[in-house]
Amino acid sequence: MTALPRLMHTMLHVADIDRTLAFYCGVLGMTVQIDRRNPATQHRNAFVGYGPYDTTAQVEFVSYGDRPTYDKGDAFGHLAIGVNDIAGLCAKVEAAGATVSRPPKLLPSGSTIAFIVDPDGYEIEVIQPAQIAGAKPA
Amino acid sequence: MTALPRLMHTMLHVADIDRTLAFYCGVLGMTVQIDRRNPATQHRNAFVGYGPYDTTAQVEFVSYGDRPTYDKGDAFGHLAIGVNDIAGLCAKVEAAGATVSRPPKLLPSGSTIAFIVDPDGYEIEVIQPAQIAGAKPA
Repeated sequence: MTALPRLMHTMLHVADIDRTLAFYCGVLGMTVQIDRRNPATQHRNAFVGYGPYDTTAQVEFVSYGDRPTYDKGDAFGHLAIGVNDIAGLCAKVEAAGATVSRPPKLLPSGSTIAFIVDPDGYEIEVIQPAQIAGAKPA
Repeated sequence: MTALPRLMHTMLHVADIDRTLAFYCGVLGMTVQIDRRNPATQHRNAFVGYGPYDTTAQVEFVSYGDRPTYDKGDAFGHLAIGVNDIAGLCAKVEAAGATVSRPPKLLPSGSTIAFIVDPDGYEIEVIQPAQIAGAKPA
């Protein structure tokens, strides 16, 4: 267990967790840390991340069998992931049939950012940080 | 810079960033890592977290001067933070005039969880993890 306090996760409702995991794991390279199902209620929740649940920030996905859609509103903005190869990741996203809504753009800070869209329509900012110590965000 | 890939942040729109920072920093104990304003557009975005932007997960808050409210929908669920003293934190939340929507509850796993509400109405799950190695989530 890493030091507390810490940000542990962000929870998002999704329509189909299998489809979600195929994207976040198969395309974005996260791994499933926890996957729990309640057959009686059709409730399922899964935690994915780039490291263990006990030490790294996760995304929790929740679905209910009788709720195929959710209202996104406009309050939630996006998740953001940092990667080493933004061009490679965006190519992988497109090869998987998913959308790159804003192609990679180099910013004055030296970071490169892009936006992609997950299977439920959630936006994900992809950041390839400037390769300098103390780089500021895009 | 820690190893990539990693989850970097979750972005939420808020009505009043000063009010938001007073809660996330003054009550929850995060610190402001970045705070940028564009006077021309009244756009402001601030990153807060329990550690540096370059190495730890953050929450990004964004506001626009002409958008006092946002539609939350029901797709986004919550943020979750892990703490050492859930009772103390919930007392602090109530002392600040904010809402503890679900008081601390000890789960069979040994974790204790509660839910609190931030100034914009976003839910935050508070988790005091079981004090055992490899503790599973609440």
